[in-house]
Formats: sequence, C-alpha cells, structure tokens
Amino acid sequence: MTQYKYLLDEKELPTHWYNILADMKEPPPYYRHPVTLELMKDPPMPPPVFPMALIAQEFSPERWIEIPEEVRDVLKMWRPSPLYRAVRWEKALDTPARIYYKWEGVSPPGSHKPNTAVAQAYYAKKEGLEGLATETGAGQWGSALCFATRLFGLKCKVFMVTISYHQKPYRRIAMEAWGGDVVPSPSSETQAGRNILAVDPETSGSLGIAISEALEYAVTHEGWKYSLGSVVNFVLLHQTVIGLEARKQMEMAGDYPDIVIGCAGGGSNAAGLIYPFLKDRLTGDRPNLRAIFVESAACPSMTRGIYAYDWGDTAKTGPVAKMHTVGHGFIPAPVHAGGLRYHGMAPSICALLDQGEVEARAYQQNACFEAALSFAQAEGFIVAPETAHAVRAVYDEAMACKESGEAKVILFNNSGHGHFDLGAYDAYHRKELPDYELEQEKIEQALRELPEIPA
Amino acid sequence: MTQYKYLLDEKELPTHWYNILADMKEPPPYYRHPVTLELMKDPPMPPPVFPMALIAQEFSPERWIEIPEEVRDVLKMWRPSPLYRAVRWEKALDTPARIYYKWEGVSPPGSHKPNTAVAQAYYAKKEGLEGLATETGAGQWGSALCFATRLFGLKCKVFMVTISYHQKPYRRIAMEAWGGDVVPSPSSETQAGRNILAVDPETSGSLGIAISEALEYAVTHEGWKYSLGSVVNFVLLHQTVIGLEARKQMEMAGDYPDIVIGCAGGGSNAAGLIYPFLKDRLTGDRPNLRAIFVESAACPSMTRGIYAYDWGDTAKTGPVAKMHTVGHGFIPAPVHAGGLRYHGMAPSICALLDQGEVEARAYQQNACFEAALSFAQAEGFIVAPETAHAVRAVYDEAMACKESGEAKVILFNNSGHGHFDLGAYDAYHRKELPDYELEQEKIEQALRELPEIPA
Repeated sequence: MTQYKYLLDEKELPTHWYNILADMKEPPPYYRHPVTLELMKDPPMPPPVFPMALIAQEFSPERWIEIPEEVRDVLKMWRPSPLYRAVRWEKALDTPARIYYKWEGVSPPGSHKPNTAVAQAYYAKKEGLEGLATETGAGQWGSALCFATRLFGLKCKVFMVTISYHQKPYRRIAMEAWGGDVVPSPSSETQAGRNILAVDPETSGSLGIAISEALEYAVTHEGWKYSLGSVVNFVLLHQTVIGLEARKQMEMAGDYPDIVIGCAGGGSNAAGLIYPFLKDRLTGDRPNLRAIFVESAACPSMTRGIYAYDWGDTAKTGPVAKMHTVGHGFIPAPVHAGGLRYHGMAPSICALLDQGEVEARAYQQNACFEAALSFAQAEGFIVAPETAHAVRAVYDEAMACKESGEAKVILFNNSGHGHFDLGAYDAYHRKELPDYELEQEKIEQALRELPEIPA
Repeated sequence: MTQYKYLLDEKELPTHWYNILADMKEPPPYYRHPVTLELMKDPPMPPPVFPMALIAQEFSPERWIEIPEEVRDVLKMWRPSPLYRAVRWEKALDTPARIYYKWEGVSPPGSHKPNTAVAQAYYAKKEGLEGLATETGAGQWGSALCFATRLFGLKCKVFMVTISYHQKPYRRIAMEAWGGDVVPSPSSETQAGRNILAVDPETSGSLGIAISEALEYAVTHEGWKYSLGSVVNFVLLHQTVIGLEARKQMEMAGDYPDIVIGCAGGGSNAAGLIYPFLKDRLTGDRPNLRAIFVESAACPSMTRGIYAYDWGDTAKTGPVAKMHTVGHGFIPAPVHAGGLRYHGMAPSICALLDQGEVEARAYQQNACFEAALSFAQAEGFIVAPETAHAVRAVYDEAMACKESGEAKVILFNNSGHGHFDLGAYDAYHRKELPDYELEQEKIEQALRELPEIPA
C-alpha cells in the first residue's frame, strides 16, 4: 500500500538542536562592530540587542544544545511536522526520482518561522523581559513572533514596511489577532523613523529602515530587546528541528536523500532541513550528499555576489558579517518572494559554500511559479513564493533523473503556504509576472560600498 | 507529560462511512419534485443532476458504506486529521472542562469540504463523466471541488457569485491554481444567467442564481453533472470520516465527549463530527450525549424557522426538502460567515432536531469573533468565521462548567482556517463589525412563500 506521509508522535520531538559549527572544518568568522569594524568575540554580538542566552548560542562549540522543555511544549502545538512522499507529483513528472518534502505550513502562522520565534520568546521571558521588537516585510516573520510572544505573555512591537502594511493587510491582521502591536515603518515612534518622515512624509519605507526602528525601539525601552528571524547562527540552530525530525521520518520511509534542497533568503529554513543531513557529509558518512540552497535571481548573493564582510542591514546599525553579499545597499527587484530579497546570507551557509560542502542556485520567478503550479495540481498544497524556488530546483533535479534514468532520492523543505501571496499566482496565471534581468553593474556598484576591514 | 494532539497513521483511515439513517427512529422524508411537488422515491433525486452512485447513497438503509480505495487514497493526502486537546485555551478560560477539537484546516483547500468533494469527483470519474459544475459563494466549496476534480483528471466549472468573485479574489485564484474554470455569476454562459443580465447588467449576483446556472450547465452539457457541497444525505455521509477518526483519537486520549459541537450552515461539517458519536445516543449506549448544531443568528433556520417542506434553492430549480427553514426567499444579513447564510438545513439534522436527539443554538457574529480571538491567542489557529460559531458555543459551555465546577468533556469541529477571511477579524478588532437584529416579520414574510404540499 502506498504511504503518503510519515508522522511522528509529539513524544518524538527532538530534545536537542544540532549545531553544525561543531562539525565544520572551520566555523564562520566572528562578527565585526558596525562602527569600529573591530572583531566582536566575547560577546560576539552587542548584548543590549539580543537576550543573553541567544548570544551564548551564537558561537557555541557544543554539537547538541538542549531544547528547553517549555520550548518543546509550545512546538508540540504543530510539531513534529509531517514528512510527505510526493507520490502524485512524481507520477505527474514521470520521474524515477523519489521525492519527499517536509511540510512546515502546518504551524499556526503557516511557515517554519515560529520554530525560532518560540525559542526567542522563551529566552526573552526567562530573562524577565517585557517585550520583543522586530521588523517585518510582508509579515511572515512578524506574525510568527507575535504568535510566539503571546504564548509566553510578552508584548511584541512590529515595525512593518509601510507599503506592505497597506498593500498586504492580512498578515498585519493576523499579527493583531495574536495581540501584536504593529506600526507602519517609518513611524513617528523612533528617532530613525521621524528623521525619514521629516524628509519624505510619503515614503513607502524599506526593510532597512524598519530594522533601524526596531533596534532603536529595543535599546531605548527598558525591558525590551530585539528579535531577528534569520541569518544568525542561533536562528539556524533553532530550525534544525526540521531536519532532525526529517531524519527519523526518512528512516520510517526506508530512504536516505541523495539531494536535500531548500530556498534561501537569509537561509534559515533551508539550513534547518539541510544541516542535520549535512552532518553526515561533514563527518564522512555520506560524502556524496548534495545540499542545494536556492535563491532568487533578483537577489543572487551566493551565485553572483562576493564572499566578504558586509553590514547585515542596509542602515549599517547591526553587526558586520562575513558572507556572500550583493552589497548592503543593493535594492532587489520587487519579486513576490519577499523573503528572498535579502542582500546577504547566513554566515554559516556562506562558509560551507566557500568550503565546497554545499551548492547554490538561483531562479527567475516565472520558472518557480511554473513548478509550484505543477506541484499544487498534483500534491494539493499551494506553496509560498519563496518555497516555490525550492520546488523549482526539485523539479529540475527530478527531470534530470528522468533524463538519466536515475532513481535519486530528493528531499526538500516545503517551508510554508502561499495563502497570503495568491496574487503572485494570479499574475503568473495571467502571464503578467515579470522576470528581471539583473545587470552586473548594479551589483558591482553596491559592492563598492562594502566596509574596509582593518588588517 | 501533557499531550496536545492525537495523530492516527494513514493506515487507520476509516474504511467505511457511517450512515446515520440506519439508526434514526425515523429517517428524513423523501424529497419532492420542484415543480409537481410529488414525492421522489425511486430514484430520490433527479438522475440527470448527480452521479448515480451518489443518488443511491442518498437514502441507503445500510449503516456502513464502504469508502472506495481510490477515495481513501486521496484522503490520505491530509487525513486522518489531528485531534487536539485545547490545553492552553482551557487554562486561559480557567475552566475545569476538557476541550478537544478536530482540526480540518490541514487539507490543501483548508477545510472539511474536500472530504466530500473527493468522493463526488471519484464517482463522477467512475461514471465516465467529463466534468462537474457547481456554484460557490465566497469560494470555500468551489476550491475544494476544483482541487478534487483535478486529482481525478476531471474538469470543473464554478459559478462564483459576482460580488465575491471581485471582492474575494484569493479563493478564485486558488481554484484557478487547481485548474478550475471560474466565472462570475450571473454569466452569459447560461440562459438563466443571460436572463438576469438582460434585466440588470450590473447585478452583484446571488447564490440562488449561481445554483441555477450550475444546474443548467450540468444538464445542458454532455458528460457533465452537478455537485453540491452540503445539505444532502450523501454529503453528510462522506463527512463522517471526521467523527470516525475522532472516536479513535478520543479513545487514545482516554476520554469520551459529554458534548459534541459543530457550526451548521447546511450542516455537513457538524454532522460529520457529530453523527458517529450520536450513534451511541441513538442506540442507547450514551443516552446523555449532547450534540449542538450552531447557526448564525442572521439565518436562524433551526432556532427561529419552521420544520416544513421548502425548496432547497432560492431559484426553486432543485428538490423540495422537509427541513427547518426561514424560507427559500429569505435574504440573510451580510455576515462574514457566508457558509452559514443558507435558508434551510440538512434534512437528517432537522429530523433529529425534531425527534429531540440534538440541540440547536444561534449566535451573533461579534460574540463569535470574541471567542475565536480568545481561541487564537491560546491555541494559535485563526479559524474561519463559520467555525467561530462553534468556538463560541464551546466557550459558553466551558464557562458553564467553570460556574458549576463540572469537568465536562467538550469536543468540537475546528472545520477550517480563516486565512481568506481575515477582514472579518480586522473589522472586529476595530469594533466595526455589526450584529444584525432580525425582525420576526422578515422571517414570517419569507415563510409565506413555502410550497403547498398536496395531501
């Protein structure tokens, strides 16, 4: 009898996160101070910004870090998430490949984001904080943090890019339903916001400005700290529950992946699935395991950027990280995959890419929606525009198997549903979705603004 | 250790649907012909309209009807659905009650609707049909049928009420993503539609008109039949997988419900959960089991209508059923729970209500969103406006337990997510959500139009 999905009882939720830094040839280098550019080692991040427990996790050498009972307790609201065998899609593609996916859309906010939001809210609560401030673009991350802080009785302040606040009200409404305080950014609540509004009261805002406002809000309000949804090590660490569960579920299915795939903006959902498998490659057990991080061709940090120190945020207020970047001043085309419009990439992924342990690939959005529709018509689930990038890579690998006749095992992270992004599908359906040709000059121009690192 | 959810492996998906007609003191009476008003017994429905296998199920005396393997195979894409213990909500309400819910939002279209859509598509395919036509209001049912027909390689034609087509594009886009052909109703594709458009080219349409168009499309196109998402016996039958799974899961939890609750527009999701438990009451094993069907105060067929023969559709083209009705010409206030705006109710539920075996209750929408927000902030899931009515009833029962100190076990059907209906939450949040006082005269006026049944 065909089996479609592999479930784990909540008793089997992982008890520890997997920290890939312990198994890397060389861990990613420390951050540098945003102004002095000095290496920040102890602590590796500015303490006023993040809860201390998270700063301690950032460069921990421990391979396994215990997931607090209270965090596991909340994750059980939707975890372990199901692992699916894409039987119908395999058939539709007529491929000998065996395709599996982890389905993260079952969380209340609808993506993998709460995996770290819950942990961050827990540590904030434990530290006695009153609330967490953050920024959000389309609202995926903001909604996860509002959901998580609510469960721990914390307040949440979300600076949401003005244009999204008005154009995409649904995630804003969800954030408010979970008790979050959402303001359009730039706002009059911070000096950074007021400065921008004084110059241009009609500005549509940007993620860079929203980050500045959230950071300012956190450091100027007693009992508040800042929360970040991707890029840094501790976020990727929290996401490894995805891959750890998937390992058990692949065992249930009697398979092991040849290729593991995820879409990557900051890189956390992909790393969350990939790292627990990549461990086997790094330790020599599975030297041929392929891991593919898929980015948007509109923001190709890994495939067309350089590996260098750059500010993590456009406003240059946060730490400087060594990463693949197209430059902190780079403004990507307005593709629907808002979560893939980040100029850099998680430092640990970049180090692994530099060390030749993982691969990167970029796609234009039309190719992604084509694959996502093929997936939706076979498997039912309409995925987020970001996730559609992973789906396209799987599609291409499955087609390569069809060509070669190889029955490879492909596993990908179906990181979230597209219920709040259906306009993108409509545009694709009506052939009104643009692809954007990115001129090399635009990247090179942004790269000229990189910091000059002291020798 | 607290357990939050009870999962069943797909091997444990029910093999048979439960047919409550076999256990009722008296099954609901046959339908009558829409024009002649004669009793329709053999067959009990007009054969050109529905696939024959469904007509055979409508008044089947069999207690257990086998679920075809091909149907079970598709249901496994998301079933068995999880049963949750609402641990955090119990705590938030400070109630001694133990609250459980079945979570139907995990299906790709996001509600219980595909449970019957899949079966209907299967029987249509088996009969050699080319496609199914249906109507949809906000699009919940239409999206389920597009999803299901696609999986069986059938076409789907959906007549979507014009005002929803334009105001709520997301479900339309989802239907198109699954390959459905969606047209605003009234359309120029049917005589019924053209007639309306000739009189009023700017009409916003109605569900009654859309039903007429779908029926006309089905009977005038070779190889096409009609599909209905609620009310009739076979639809309720298909939904019993919900309750059959829940029985096993409640056993895993070591509990049995004192009260089972569902929201009811046509009644299918509520009956789907309730009937497999109500069996125990009808057969004497659980004589004190309470079953509550919750309707909208804007369309109170069970609580303020009468039990009489009435047309199932506003346009008087479909069969006449004996049911609780506020009259086929009754136009309910524009509450957000579009799925609860049906003038009648499933005949089997009405017969059970008339026989004193189940209860009915009606709520204004503000009370429902208040309870749904309390639920979302504790349990995470933002439910559909329809489902919010069940949530309110649970809330009140839990509060009654708090008052009395009784630790009752309450089980309800969390029939779908509210991702496409967040505007309603926004209106509630901004205190702009109206309650509608329904004047008795409006109901009485509509009841004057009931058919005169020949003696």
